[in-house]
Amino acid sequence: MYFQRVKKMNFRNDLATKIALIDNELLKYLQQIQQDCPPQLYESLEYSLFPGGKRLRPVILLAVCEALGGRTEDALPFACALEIIHNYSLTHDDLPCMDDDDMRRGKPSNHKVFGEAMAILAGDGLLNLAYEIMAEFCSNNPNPNFLRAMAKIAKNAGVTGMVGGQALDIQQSADLRLIHENKTAKLFISAFAAGALCANNTGSIDFFENLGLNFGLAFQIMDDIDDGQSSSESELAVPLDDAAKMLQTLENSEFLQALLEYIFKGRE
Amino acid sequence: MYFQRVKKMNFRNDLATKIALIDNELLKYLQQIQQDCPPQLYESLEYSLFPGGKRLRPVILLAVCEALGGRTEDALPFACALEIIHNYSLTHDDLPCMDDDDMRRGKPSNHKVFGEAMAILAGDGLLNLAYEIMAEFCSNNPNPNFLRAMAKIAKNAGVTGMVGGQALDIQQSADLRLIHENKTAKLFISAFAAGALCANNTGSIDFFENLGLNFGLAFQIMDDIDDGQSSSESELAVPLDDAAKMLQTLENSEFLQALLEYIFKGRE
Repeated sequence: MYFQRVKKMNFRNDLATKIALIDNELLKYLQQIQQDCPPQLYESLEYSLFPGGKRLRPVILLAVCEALGGRTEDALPFACALEIIHNYSLTHDDLPCMDDDDMRRGKPSNHKVFGEAMAILAGDGLLNLAYEIMAEFCSNNPNPNFLRAMAKIAKNAGVTGMVGGQALDIQQSADLRLIHENKTAKLFISAFAAGALCANNTGSIDFFENLGLNFGLAFQIMDDIDDGQSSSESELAVPLDDAAKMLQTLENSEFLQALLEYIFKGRE
Repeated sequence: MYFQRVKKMNFRNDLATKIALIDNELLKYLQQIQQDCPPQLYESLEYSLFPGGKRLRPVILLAVCEALGGRTEDALPFACALEIIHNYSLTHDDLPCMDDDDMRRGKPSNHKVFGEAMAILAGDGLLNLAYEIMAEFCSNNPNPNFLRAMAKIAKNAGVTGMVGGQALDIQQSADLRLIHENKTAKLFISAFAAGALCANNTGSIDFFENLGLNFGLAFQIMDDIDDGQSSSESELAVPLDDAAKMLQTLENSEFLQALLEYIFKGRE
């Protein structure tokens, strides 16, 4: 019991440290553009990025890199880029012609504050910023695995990935599993696989892509259940169980296992 | 007189060849995503990209690379990415909450055909696709100058570049020169500078960025004059004259000089 509590405290500390690291780095990137970015656009970007949500995708990316013995500073730019891509997609998804959400993370959504035009431009600017960050880092740190990480993040975010998933979602014609896989799981696949690539662990990419798929599907099904939508606990069990089992086979995965438990609140 | 006509014919042939090369490559990229892209989203992407306009930015990028002795196949992915970025920006700029344009290149604009949501997603998908193409190419062709070309294209397209220019434009608070520089000239700066980087001619980047700035400013002022807006021929003369003079100092720039004449219809 005492051991469990200590473990839990350590996990919470680790998580808070990682989130602080990511937030600081995101702020650093914002500071770099502030001078030459129109003030209202800058405010709109910052409003979409802060205060953040759980920072789950970048936390996973960092944790995978660290579990495989990689350097945190190599993973951080990709972690931030992935989080920025996630936040651009939320900003555009909330627009009236999309999901028409007035609230996001307990405050009015971007377009309610800055107007639709500025919200679209903030989303465009964030998406582009993610690639500015990765391109600049790759340019200064020539390592083919970093380039592969960027290419993977790009593909999973695009029209055969997340953007494609959102297109299927607004048409409501595709099956739910395909929507979940593209709209939600593809960014988690990026988080796990890019984390491995940043640690130069190229032999494990298939493993981590599969893990990211299961994690992402479980995450979206849980979200649907909590929203009172049609998905059931039994649907959740399969990918969640697969993800948990895969993590158990991984060395140094204590943090990731605790993260899974934390997110899925003992459902696994 | 005969010589002039032959030169003009050669230029027109060269231009048509370059545009065909770019269009073919763009089609190839579309074919690569078609299988895994939702059909309606795919149609919307294709509708934004084809039939194209003058393909001016990618033509310049190819021409600069060739003038400096570089290989066309090295410049082509960056040329296409730049054209795709230009087309995403038009798709988003035409939206009702932005410039609210119903027509583009003689046909209904994207959102008039596919709806606002799909037009936003098509724009997002195009922007992302540009980076998928460049990241994949850089990953397969490790050359630090290609990475620098991607980083430069990214920076010029972002919130301190084109997106920033559009934000200034919708607020109508900034001075016109700053809007022109960011909204229009930054992509031309990318075209000239990335063309030089693709030819591994790193010593000439400042020259080509300056040339791109003058060219871009002249292009936007001409556009404003033709639209009956406030800009005057005398404002046009300065950057156009500077661009023409810079081109004259450049070896193997016959095509680029003819292109300038062709675009500015003897105004220089």
